[in-house]
Amino acid sequence: MKILFVGDVFGKPGRQAVQRLVPRLIAREGLDLVIANAENSAAGAGVTPDAAEELLAAEVDLLTSGNHIWSKREIVPYLEKPGSRLLRPANYPGAPGRGRGIASTPDGRRLGVVNLEGRVFMKALDDPFRAAEAEIAALRAEGVTAILVDMHCEATSEKNAMGWFLDGRVSAVLGTHTHVQTADARVLPGGTAFVTDVGMCGPWDSVIGVRKELVLERFLTQRPVGFEPAKRDVWLQGAIVEIDDATGRARSIARVQERLEE
Amino acid sequence: MKILFVGDVFGKPGRQAVQRLVPRLIAREGLDLVIANAENSAAGAGVTPDAAEELLAAEVDLLTSGNHIWSKREIVPYLEKPGSRLLRPANYPGAPGRGRGIASTPDGRRLGVVNLEGRVFMKALDDPFRAAEAEIAALRAEGVTAILVDMHCEATSEKNAMGWFLDGRVSAVLGTHTHVQTADARVLPGGTAFVTDVGMCGPWDSVIGVRKELVLERFLTQRPVGFEPAKRDVWLQGAIVEIDDATGRARSIARVQERLEE
Amino acid sequence: MKILFVGDVFGKPGRQAVQRLVPRLIAREGLDLVIANAENSAAGAGVTPDAAEELLAAEVDLLTSGNHIWSKREIVPYLEKPGSRLLRPANYPGAPGRGRGIASTPDGRRLGVVNLEGRVFMKALDDPFRAAEAEIAALRAEGVTAILVDMHCEATSEKNAMGWFLDGRVSAVLGTHTHVQTADARVLPGGTAFVTDVGMCGPWDSVIGVRKELVLERFLTQRPVGFEPAKRDVWLQGAIVEIDDATGRARSIARVQERLEE
Amino acid sequence: MKILFVGDVFGKPGRQAVQRLVPRLIAREGLDLVIANAENSAAGAGVTPDAAEELLAAEVDLLTSGNHIWSKREIVPYLEKPGSRLLRPANYPGAPGRGRGIASTPDGRRLGVVNLEGRVFMKALDDPFRAAEAEIAALRAEGVTAILVDMHCEATSEKNAMGWFLDGRVSAVLGTHTHVQTADARVLPGGTAFVTDVGMCGPWDSVIGVRKELVLERFLTQRPVGFEPAKRDVWLQGAIVEIDDATGRARSIARVQERLEE
Ligand SMILES: [Fe+2]
Ligand SMILES: [Fe+2]
Ligand SMILES: [Fe+2]
Ligand SMILES: [Fe+2]
Ligand SMILES: [Fe+2]
Ligand SMILES: [Fe+2]
Ligand SMILES: [Fe+2]
Ligand SMILES: [Fe+2]
Repeated sequence: MKILFVGDVFGKPGRQAVQRLVPRLIAREGLDLVIANAENSAAGAGVTPDAAEELLAAEVDLLTSGNHIWSKREIVPYLEKPGSRLLRPANYPGAPGRGRGIASTPDGRRLGVVNLEGRVFMKALDDPFRAAEAEIAALRAEGVTAILVDMHCEATSEKNAMGWFLDGRVSAVLGTHTHVQTADARVLPGGTAFVTDVGMCGPWDSVIGVRKELVLERFLTQRPVGFEPAKRDVWLQGAIVEIDDATGRARSIARVQERLEE
Repeated sequence: MKILFVGDVFGKPGRQAVQRLVPRLIAREGLDLVIANAENSAAGAGVTPDAAEELLAAEVDLLTSGNHIWSKREIVPYLEKPGSRLLRPANYPGAPGRGRGIASTPDGRRLGVVNLEGRVFMKALDDPFRAAEAEIAALRAEGVTAILVDMHCEATSEKNAMGWFLDGRVSAVLGTHTHVQTADARVLPGGTAFVTDVGMCGPWDSVIGVRKELVLERFLTQRPVGFEPAKRDVWLQGAIVEIDDATGRARSIARVQERLEE
Repeated sequence: MKILFVGDVFGKPGRQAVQRLVPRLIAREGLDLVIANAENSAAGAGVTPDAAEELLAAEVDLLTSGNHIWSKREIVPYLEKPGSRLLRPANYPGAPGRGRGIASTPDGRRLGVVNLEGRVFMKALDDPFRAAEAEIAALRAEGVTAILVDMHCEATSEKNAMGWFLDGRVSAVLGTHTHVQTADARVLPGGTAFVTDVGMCGPWDSVIGVRKELVLERFLTQRPVGFEPAKRDVWLQGAIVEIDDATGRARSIARVQERLEE
Repeated sequence: MKILFVGDVFGKPGRQAVQRLVPRLIAREGLDLVIANAENSAAGAGVTPDAAEELLAAEVDLLTSGNHIWSKREIVPYLEKPGSRLLRPANYPGAPGRGRGIASTPDGRRLGVVNLEGRVFMKALDDPFRAAEAEIAALRAEGVTAILVDMHCEATSEKNAMGWFLDGRVSAVLGTHTHVQTADARVLPGGTAFVTDVGMCGPWDSVIGVRKELVLERFLTQRPVGFEPAKRDVWLQGAIVEIDDATGRARSIARVQERLEE
């Protein structure tokens, strides 16, 4: 099974990059499934049902998210809809929606997806390590062999710890949230593909997606400044993981950086 | 001028990688100067005079550091020594030592180096943006054209903001501290080479340098666990920046990942 | 000189308590001046010009603030108005408005007021300790002897450190921000009145001013929940400091807790 | 049942205050039981078995603790000993020792004690609210009616939220950790005695127990500085709660501040 995972889709530029580049990548790379993190898909913060639908219409099979998932109130009923293809991090206590899902290829092969959120420099959520074990057990109980984990968090230590914690137990642990792709993609010894962060899908002429003048103003004044998405130099970033269908082990992981021609 | 900047040198494995690989890279790449961040060079936390001397003996010209610089008390007189080639972040208020330095090639060309520490998720230091401006002005006053900035910080937003803030004013803004190399090295429009993090020089069979069992125990228990450096799968990571001597503008930046054969 | 300092005035209930109780306290206690922290006076977050004017009309002589000062955009021109009687923390870099002011009694005695914001668990502001020294020097240069410092911060350590740092240099260091009055009011050996927090002026049937159901929902879900001010069991809290006009030393400090009859 | 709860006992000065003042308070106030938070009893950080035994010998019946409980490694077997009278916060995942205990009066009346640690500005522990419910249920299952909760945390919001959360379900929610007593002790409408912080038992000529010169140096330099306990102006601080044995409801709460004569 060959899977493309796309990092935090940022605003309209990010959605456009998905729409134009994902179909091309499916064809060029012979992808079986596409997963994308949608937490910034609505104007840079949060997800609306419309933004989610737009991505799912662009041949994305399942959406994950992160700390921004609750920004738009209208997403709650969408998360709760039976068969919803948008996940929220599994380790929110008693939250609407689900932290795991299954995507299926046309020929019936299944990929389990688990969405987690870290706690270092972030919110006081339930333990993502124990949540991971519970969600993986639930997927295994449904007979799923291939499992992809979106570890949405800030600190490189927590992401790498999760990679080692799940090595040999899932097909891939792929980091999101920092919006900058890291250059450490590899298959760990136990057969789990890992990268600290796959990077965002959005404008590089920015500070992690946001208009750079606004971010600089906030740093220089320490006063609140409204953020707006930047527009130019848009890249789709992610990773392609090849999984052995029989064992669920990763065969390879390759970073993806694809520029949207303007 | 062609410069190698090596990220956080981690413990003995990191120092060994510098000793064996830096001379080789100097020869292979025709490097003029080598700068390295030494903040973790003594057993993974802090710098001792011995660790610093070991790196400087291995053809490193100047050392930078970061939040761990004060871990070993004996480093204070070493920082204060006239002509010390170990910097501490410039934005510590009234600290011993200096936050900028100058390295010179055998043929007399000079590179100014500025060391900064970020504040997001870190300490309540003086503003690194204003400190950068002051240090750069001081270097310019000494007639230096080429300037490399080590931006030691946690958040991708703060590092990228500094890159844009200094674009066109220095030759390079290179991030350190997260120990994971990022895949976004590029020359910004104003002529400043930038990468969010150059990565560490140390063992990858680890969580950012530390034995992974220990880090996992800390995450799973939330209790204090002593950290020890890991040993295997050692990589030197950094970036090579080519600078136009006349203008101080960067011509190119290339990420470096070089494995130490075991 | 006898001064009443009122802690964070919280929303409409807090403003009403000031309006009804401050005139009564002035009469009962023979107060010369009244200072109040207004950072939560507009609906629990921030200050509007109307809220500020309402407090100043209620016999308050000068207003301080804190981290919430920038919540309402319309306060910026009000802060910048010549002769503005609303301060913002002095240690915001290059901010509109001022961090110090002078209030005068009808018979011409003057009280300098300095507003500071802490950094522990808060924003990356300029150093409040060095800012305090600069503001105090400026007030002394204007011939002011009696000085009150509003130390707006979270951590008891930072507030107590400021108290000792300024002991003998100002008349009073009074803490705000946690909304809970502390029971440690005393005159330090150098003659500076100190209390870790004077408490808020607002509804106690709440979690520090906010409707308790909303705060509990946020703690239990770790999801964003809109906050609204609570209404009942309203107390004015603060401290009365008596200052020797000749020396500027505090003679006494007494905590104030005055219930608004419903 | 009349209970004295003593806040964070700080170093040797704090232990001496307990030894001299607790017996006196027992006699003067007719106390049935004494509980103390011991997290700083060993030289200001952590608990040793000796420090714990010293407190228990001084007529303290049960000890609670907090974030510093793991500072001294030798405390782990002591926590695990059958019948140990030292608790650790209940919401550490899978930790040695226990987060609840029962103290008995000579005439056989029982007080359940629950120890919790907050998460705001602190560690990523399990949810203290849900942990509280589980521990209370366990105590109820053992037939305990009177329950005292030590809520060890930084933020006033989290402590007040816990007070309201447990109002009517326990006899008292008493805060610790900030080392400064608050002036808000009261019985909430449901019958639960509450105070945001009972304050420490230790030297006031200090910054929350530590020699003030050392804390100021840390604030002014942002560099690590070793901390030592201060010595003078020692106060025992806490609260006395009277509980109706039949219902477990609090009848009253009174703050305690008792100076140790030098
Ligand atoms: Fe994101
Ligand atoms: Fe995120
Ligand atoms: Fe480092
Ligand atoms: Fe670092
Ligand atoms: Fe406030
Ligand atoms: Fe505040
Ligand atoms: Fe404590
Ligand atoms: Fe504590």
